[in-house]
Amino acid sequence: MAGTELPRIEQDWTDISAKAQTKLRNSIPSEWRIVPGKLPSDTQLDITDFPAKSGLLSDQELKITSSYATEIVGAIAAGEWTAVEVTTAFCKRAAIAHQLTNCLTVIMFDDAIKRAKALDDHFSRTGTTTGPLHGLPVSLKDNFNIPGYPSSVGFCAWALDPVKEESTIVSVLRDLGAVAYVKTNVPTAMMIAESVNNVYGRTVNPLNRNLTSGGSSGGESALIAMKGSPLGVGTDIGGSLRIPAACTGIFTIRPSYGRFPHFDARTGMGGQEAVASVHGPMARSIGDVKLWIESVVGAKPWLKDPKCIPLPYQLITLNHKLKIAVLWDNGIVHPTPPVTRALQHTVEKLKAAGHEILDWPATDHAEAMILMGKFFLADGGKSIKSVLEQSGEPLQTEMAAYGTATELGVHELWQLQKQRTALAKRYLDRMVACEGLDAILTPTTPYAAPKNGEFRSVSYTGVYNILDLSATTFPTGVVADKEKDVYAQDFTAFGEGDEVVFKDYVAGDVHGMPVSLQLVGKRLEEEKIVAVTEKVVEVLGVK
Amino acid sequence: MAGTELPRIEQDWTDISAKAQTKLRNSIPSEWRIVPGKLPSDTQLDITDFPAKSGLLSDQELKITSSYATEIVGAIAAGEWTAVEVTTAFCKRAAIAHQLTNCLTVIMFDDAIKRAKALDDHFSRTGTTTGPLHGLPVSLKDNFNIPGYPSSVGFCAWALDPVKEESTIVSVLRDLGAVAYVKTNVPTAMMIAESVNNVYGRTVNPLNRNLTSGGSSGGESALIAMKGSPLGVGTDIGGSLRIPAACTGIFTIRPSYGRFPHFDARTGMGGQEAVASVHGPMARSIGDVKLWIESVVGAKPWLKDPKCIPLPYQLITLNHKLKIAVLWDNGIVHPTPPVTRALQHTVEKLKAAGHEILDWPATDHAEAMILMGKFFLADGGKSIKSVLEQSGEPLQTEMAAYGTATELGVHELWQLQKQRTALAKRYLDRMVACEGLDAILTPTTPYAAPKNGEFRSVSYTGVYNILDLSATTFPTGVVADKEKDVYAQDFTAFGEGDEVVFKDYVAGDVHGMPVSLQLVGKRLEEEKIVAVTEKVVEVLGVK
Repeated sequence: MAGTELPRIEQDWTDISAKAQTKLRNSIPSEWRIVPGKLPSDTQLDITDFPAKSGLLSDQELKITSSYATEIVGAIAAGEWTAVEVTTAFCKRAAIAHQLTNCLTVIMFDDAIKRAKALDDHFSRTGTTTGPLHGLPVSLKDNFNIPGYPSSVGFCAWALDPVKEESTIVSVLRDLGAVAYVKTNVPTAMMIAESVNNVYGRTVNPLNRNLTSGGSSGGESALIAMKGSPLGVGTDIGGSLRIPAACTGIFTIRPSYGRFPHFDARTGMGGQEAVASVHGPMARSIGDVKLWIESVVGAKPWLKDPKCIPLPYQLITLNHKLKIAVLWDNGIVHPTPPVTRALQHTVEKLKAAGHEILDWPATDHAEAMILMGKFFLADGGKSIKSVLEQSGEPLQTEMAAYGTATELGVHELWQLQKQRTALAKRYLDRMVACEGLDAILTPTTPYAAPKNGEFRSVSYTGVYNILDLSATTFPTGVVADKEKDVYAQDFTAFGEGDEVVFKDYVAGDVHGMPVSLQLVGKRLEEEKIVAVTEKVVEVLGVK
Repeated sequence: MAGTELPRIEQDWTDISAKAQTKLRNSIPSEWRIVPGKLPSDTQLDITDFPAKSGLLSDQELKITSSYATEIVGAIAAGEWTAVEVTTAFCKRAAIAHQLTNCLTVIMFDDAIKRAKALDDHFSRTGTTTGPLHGLPVSLKDNFNIPGYPSSVGFCAWALDPVKEESTIVSVLRDLGAVAYVKTNVPTAMMIAESVNNVYGRTVNPLNRNLTSGGSSGGESALIAMKGSPLGVGTDIGGSLRIPAACTGIFTIRPSYGRFPHFDARTGMGGQEAVASVHGPMARSIGDVKLWIESVVGAKPWLKDPKCIPLPYQLITLNHKLKIAVLWDNGIVHPTPPVTRALQHTVEKLKAAGHEILDWPATDHAEAMILMGKFFLADGGKSIKSVLEQSGEPLQTEMAAYGTATELGVHELWQLQKQRTALAKRYLDRMVACEGLDAILTPTTPYAAPKNGEFRSVSYTGVYNILDLSATTFPTGVVADKEKDVYAQDFTAFGEGDEVVFKDYVAGDVHGMPVSLQLVGKRLEEEKIVAVTEKVVEVLGVK
């Protein structure tokens, strides 16, 4: 039924998992391992202050790891810091982050420091950097292939096999001077909005370990929020960059398909194109997101990836007065109270700064999400099941639909693709009709961040995957507050899914969590939506 | 089996066909109908001189219709010619062309002249044009929707039904000032490389009526070669712009997907995206092709079509010395002797002009064509059969494969898509490795033009649909010559398909026909490949 032609692996999946975890643990140098007595107690939920208190990092290392990517490449290019000291600092902090949040899957510290040394040698010898990211450690989501290391993508069957290929983005980043040093955890097949799988288990949110760091790029978000990486690369097919960024209060952009190089990254559903998976940067500032885009697009990736569009980096001049349409809810799931308050707060601040605000309708959002579900399940789950069956590992409960899906025929797929393009046309027409529209402001998720295992709806992000629009997520400066953030007495759910989100919500559970929102631009207008985001966070007083 | 849910039409398909043909014939004003005695005899194969001799066109009308699109828009903008006189001239000449080649499907002369009048009024009133194509008659392939007229796409079931939708390219062209006046013939579902269907029958080549004008945009090519249109719009999914252009010695460009607006054009295989259908201009000069591109891209079509890429028109400066790689054959089908001679001639001229010429390998071409076949048949022919079944019309023999195909499951489609992207990556790598490569020069088809019913292989064009590269076709100035163009004594066919092409070939049949070639550039580099084509035809001394 699952159409598998792949050989059954002899080992039991639990053995594979144990081996993979042991290998990962052992790849942390012993001097960077936290002895059990020194670990924060299980009741300490926010462990972001642990690195500073751990005694494992020097003051200089704390300073380096607290810096933004733009500052780091500046300091290295100025000869103030070496690539080796920067890389070592992030390796250490990443090791700590992992021990507290379970965010890594592959550790490449030795290779990274060797590479940093070579970069420093080049700099000493020539007085020049090798590229705009010279010496910058960049973390990579698990699915990016690096020869000699596995890309498990959360599958036991793939967890112990080093790959031979190299993802195009990996070689592009290396050519730009970046240093690869870790790969980060994902959910099985990257098809859950949290980061949990049978190989490495679950990544938790460092701001509150009871909560999820999101998914599927949730190893990245946990690592970056711990300052264990200055800049990471994730992927997004239904919200997988934006959801984890929002859960941890960091920045990202979901680009339109073809803007950034994509070739030879591993996926659980290879060849699926109706909803395109895209790559993008994740960082603690919008400036760092911009640095990544400018560097990667500047590298002319269309000469390396046949699906990349030859669209050079665009310099943007925004109107002084922005025009922003607000989607208060999508008619599928209401945002929880902290998110609604973040919308209100952002709108008030924008209005006060003289920007034009109007409402945006949820028209077509429900249909887009139905289409997304059909596209994801169109092969009847064969791609995913065939890999699971190789090791005999069970399907994650969140992915039950892949176990029961019926494969579609190509004729039906064509009809769905027609329907999607018609929907995209209607949406575009509405955006264009709203003359001078700079962005749509929406929740990124219904949550500040839900409890582990309770992420229920990707509807705020997924619609823009179906539409292939550029979209950022950013922290608003609003922090969830158990006193303020309560549902209205007369709350009425849109339906069952919404009812579950409503019932899950406990104001105290998310107290103190940052709240993020999404800004959506037109297709392939990455620079524009970043520029809008810069302006909005400036208005909000967020870095 | 064919998954049809469409209602069976009551009328017999032969009745529909008769009605559609009668309606078409009656829409030609009686004064423009050629009385039987005045028609050229069946033995006159080249009928391109008929309009000048027919007495139906005035000297001024002959002058107008012999002009290039660039000259026409210039003359109208200068107030020298009116849109009405230009439109009238082309309506007349199109009517004549149709009566000799059977190239039209829809005639909209009254609407066109009314529209031209309105444009003239605007010009008189304001002294300005409404756009860069002000007053220019533009012919449209049958599948472009114009409200109130049918888009049969060669299907009897659709032949009598006026459509409600308007294709985006139609509205874009109208906004640019163009005048729609005719739609042109295609093969059933636009899936044959000639233009023959059960509604309107076959379009023939005006340069030699024994030969095909190609397909699927073969109504366009016949009309334009007859100077019944200064500029037309066709589509290309496997060569459908380039093949008819080559068969009639005119120019076209197959753009990469997303460059020109595509929304709401009718197709026989709606929602099929693995090999994207694209639109492009067809004309008697490369300058006219350029005019169309600059106008259409300048209209920012990405604000109207969600699949259009926001890539502004690029100004190109070529290196003084071009670097061109030559594909002498594709390892599937040898070009027939006139085409090989055209390649040799072009290479000699380019070398003499100081350009760099090297060989290009046929690597991956065969695999690309196998993939194309699988993608086209992936729905088991359901889309096409369901429309045929509505009227009971038979499948064209050339399309037999659609009758017997088995539908693929989506899982298999995904594997094929993965294979296609890997192939595209290898091809791109070879292009980039050939440093400074400006274009690949290849046959457009194996033929000058084959006899009606004998078009055997789209392999020279189809590979670039699979790869989504920009590609032009242009006449070389070489004319087939029965003395010179004979196969070598030791000719060895690549295989069965090649053997058939070899056996079909009779040098005398194509004597005097122009021979065209293809120039291929990188993806989305339409302006660049047009610039290269301009330079090549300049070297060849072709307009």
